[in-house]
Amino acid sequence: MEPADSAARARSWWGWGYTDAQPDDAECAALGALLPGTLARPLPVPRVADLPIGRPAATPPAALAHLVTDDPRARAAHAMGKAYRDVIRALRGRPGRIPDLVARPATDQDVADLLDWAGGQGVAVIPFGGGSSVVGGVEYRGDAHHAVLSLDLTSMSRVLEIDPASRSARIQAGALGPVLEQQLRPHGLTLRHFPQSFEFSTLGGWLATRAGGHYATGPTHIDDFVQSLRVITPAGASTSWRLPASGAGPSPDRLFLGSEGTLGVITEAWLRVQERPEHRASASVAFADFGQALDAVRAIAQSDLAPANCRLLDPGEALLAGASPDGSSVLVLGFESATAPVGDRLAAALVLARAHGGRAEPPTAGRDAGADPAVGAWRSAFLRMPYLRDGLARMGAVVETFETASTWDRLPALIDAVRTEVAAAALKATGHPATVNCRLTHAYPDGAAPYFTVAVAGRPGDEVAVWDEIKAVTTDVLHRHRATVTHHHAVGRDHRPGYDRQRPEPFALALRAAKHALDPHGILNPGVLID
Amino acid sequence: MEPADSAARARSWWGWGYTDAQPDDAECAALGALLPGTLARPLPVPRVADLPIGRPAATPPAALAHLVTDDPRARAAHAMGKAYRDVIRALRGRPGRIPDLVARPATDQDVADLLDWAGGQGVAVIPFGGGSSVVGGVEYRGDAHHAVLSLDLTSMSRVLEIDPASRSARIQAGALGPVLEQQLRPHGLTLRHFPQSFEFSTLGGWLATRAGGHYATGPTHIDDFVQSLRVITPAGASTSWRLPASGAGPSPDRLFLGSEGTLGVITEAWLRVQERPEHRASASVAFADFGQALDAVRAIAQSDLAPANCRLLDPGEALLAGASPDGSSVLVLGFESATAPVGDRLAAALVLARAHGGRAEPPTAGRDAGADPAVGAWRSAFLRMPYLRDGLARMGAVVETFETASTWDRLPALIDAVRTEVAAAALKATGHPATVNCRLTHAYPDGAAPYFTVAVAGRPGDEVAVWDEIKAVTTDVLHRHRATVTHHHAVGRDHRPGYDRQRPEPFALALRAAKHALDPHGILNPGVLID
Repeated sequence: MEPADSAARARSWWGWGYTDAQPDDAECAALGALLPGTLARPLPVPRVADLPIGRPAATPPAALAHLVTDDPRARAAHAMGKAYRDVIRALRGRPGRIPDLVARPATDQDVADLLDWAGGQGVAVIPFGGGSSVVGGVEYRGDAHHAVLSLDLTSMSRVLEIDPASRSARIQAGALGPVLEQQLRPHGLTLRHFPQSFEFSTLGGWLATRAGGHYATGPTHIDDFVQSLRVITPAGASTSWRLPASGAGPSPDRLFLGSEGTLGVITEAWLRVQERPEHRASASVAFADFGQALDAVRAIAQSDLAPANCRLLDPGEALLAGASPDGSSVLVLGFESATAPVGDRLAAALVLARAHGGRAEPPTAGRDAGADPAVGAWRSAFLRMPYLRDGLARMGAVVETFETASTWDRLPALIDAVRTEVAAAALKATGHPATVNCRLTHAYPDGAAPYFTVAVAGRPGDEVAVWDEIKAVTTDVLHRHRATVTHHHAVGRDHRPGYDRQRPEPFALALRAAKHALDPHGILNPGVLID
Repeated sequence: MEPADSAARARSWWGWGYTDAQPDDAECAALGALLPGTLARPLPVPRVADLPIGRPAATPPAALAHLVTDDPRARAAHAMGKAYRDVIRALRGRPGRIPDLVARPATDQDVADLLDWAGGQGVAVIPFGGGSSVVGGVEYRGDAHHAVLSLDLTSMSRVLEIDPASRSARIQAGALGPVLEQQLRPHGLTLRHFPQSFEFSTLGGWLATRAGGHYATGPTHIDDFVQSLRVITPAGASTSWRLPASGAGPSPDRLFLGSEGTLGVITEAWLRVQERPEHRASASVAFADFGQALDAVRAIAQSDLAPANCRLLDPGEALLAGASPDGSSVLVLGFESATAPVGDRLAAALVLARAHGGRAEPPTAGRDAGADPAVGAWRSAFLRMPYLRDGLARMGAVVETFETASTWDRLPALIDAVRTEVAAAALKATGHPATVNCRLTHAYPDGAAPYFTVAVAGRPGDEVAVWDEIKAVTTDVLHRHRATVTHHHAVGRDHRPGYDRQRPEPFALALRAAKHALDPHGILNPGVLID
């Protein structure tokens, strides 16, 4: 079971995804034309040679030298994640602190040795998977450490073991989504965890950030797929037992899930995998009224129909995705099963949608999930979205997404408040009208996760400040509505102000104490989650 | 929403449940006759007046005196849980350390005040719900504290708030199962969490021990129903936000779930509740071969049929429950839904069962879950079981249950080893042949939870030592097979040896640090989980 060759296409060091998929200057200009007030021509693509990359402030010992590089391009590519804030900083030639070194361990022992060395030297260690963080999770900020090491796990990318009886697989944390799926496919299995960043994020990153998958209901957070974890901490290796369930004390795995590299480095996990679905059915439903559409999603989430996809696009999102030209909201419904046809479940969901004013297109069933035109349009737009964001950034626009979750009772007011207040903040910060769109990405019996996109022309050269002003208002709105600071993007450094207010103080005490016990030198991802 | 009057029937201070449901002397003798080597006549029912109850070693301050009692019967009833080990110690007049005081707080502030006082005085505090612990979770052992306070939460038993849109309820932790269900029923809602101890255990106990419900698949551990928790710790009150899901750092709730009273006192929770099921169908399936029956359960658990009940009884369990007289294993299948008929799902499960050699009785569908005779027999026996255990204990028998969970690949060998080695250990310890029965209580796609019952005549007067010898072998077998020390009974003090070996050492470091941060005086449930 060898890893797939995922490096055949060149990755962008500064922007989302593959360089050959980035919009060219003409496409950037066309995108900019949609947003009043953007630049006349795109900012140039940044070059590594222009970055202020100095000599590394630390040198690894000879025994570890073969794992470590100080190559400028590698260091540049590990300096930041892929938030709008990161992209625009790169475009404006003001990136975050460039790490001194990039290490690529091949074994748990390599990781332990690197942590030992870094702990002794006071070198900060930033665990790094696919580098797709959109919350400042993989950069170093401040100057409390004299040197910074980016710990890139992608050399540890193999599916090590498969237990077909228990439908479980032991997988190394550095495997990117396609790399692990390619190794599971010959066994007829899939992890079936498809975040939007699937191609550019790793299992370890998903686990450390409690990533949310593509699926709308049922188990969708990676947490639910975890049977056991192996974590290398400065205080030793932690291996939990493979168990389908346990009631033995607080879950050890749940402490490391979401710890964002602050407590240890996840190097492998046993995960629950699934048979590949054979039966599919999908449909889209248009709603004239967004509030009624919310009620429809709630009714479906509170039934036991369990759709794989149940995404609601507001009129702006639906227009952008090409899913509806007429100002309707669109609900994209999909069902999947490895064992039985799902047409009946789709039909039952459509009955619920119609009862709330939905106009359903005739459903499409069979083996092709993308057969419904609106569904297909939405899917392409979904994967293309981050590239377009970068294209707009090159036009000096401020374009970013943020997401949250709330119980149903608070959801309509929350969405209204975000729309109104964030649009007002964007206008105030830029003098330009802003677009604020919303979709529901995940639906639960007790609530849902809305996902917002904001786009506005920036103040040339001040885009970071503009975004920070908008973000502060966002954080405040979410806090007032007791909506979580993040449903699946993680906390990182960018969400710290909201997280610090959301997290119960006794839990902060406990987490700080746990951090001190496991990372006594304070080298692991400093500034993330806790100080 | 006032609590139900759950105290109408008298509770036994020393044995399971209601005194009027305990087997009388004649029934005890009849039970004993089934087990070779037991006593000729039952041990007498123990009396509080015979217990060594001294003057309390601590006196609460005047401001808290109204919450605290030193009544001997109350102290006796709070001295231990309801494990076999507890029952036989009471019967033999050698109970655990009797607490000095029993407190019954009415508010969070009462709890905080009691913790403050106890912390200042070095008084151990044992949080106490229904007192149904079967793992030594609610008694004090050792002598590191000069006095012991049992903190009985059952005065805090109200459903405080219901959010029908989000199908959620805010419930105080001291509510016993029937007390909270009675308050939810007028709203058409149910928590649908039915552990075997349902009548005699509280929400707070379920949360603190990660209790498993009656349902065999899908969300069954109480953990999955938690939206938010309120926990009073000596370092302050922790209130997490009500959220359907969140990716903001490690879950605060998951640290307190399973903390067994060592980190704080859970006083209330927002929980996901459900509409009451309207549609039901059940059936039983007989298997000549237990191994084939295991395969059938696995096939059903790995489908998306999601039975509410999927319990497999081995021949001994089936015989005892009156579900099968002919040496077959019996699979009890049940489906429930609030939204749609479930006959098709039952039929599909029966197809899978038959494919693995099962002989299904014609299924029963409709509103009466107990219509199938084997299902009904099993249900009555299930609730009666702990009373019969006490009856056998009065005959000097050693009768106890233990449970675990394992992935499917290891399950058959695990069950064989437990049967063989535990029966041998019981024979060695007593000279009498032992019965070791097994049922599967919960089934997951990646594994299942087997539940064992062992019964053997004891060595008169030495029953505790006999059980401890058997338990040590049990712990060893589970450890060798990497099966969890507990699936849903918790760790308490009785499972510490196994838990200490199972828990990853870095997690132990983190948990100890968290404990020290939240409970700096070390007063909360000392000896449970960690030292």
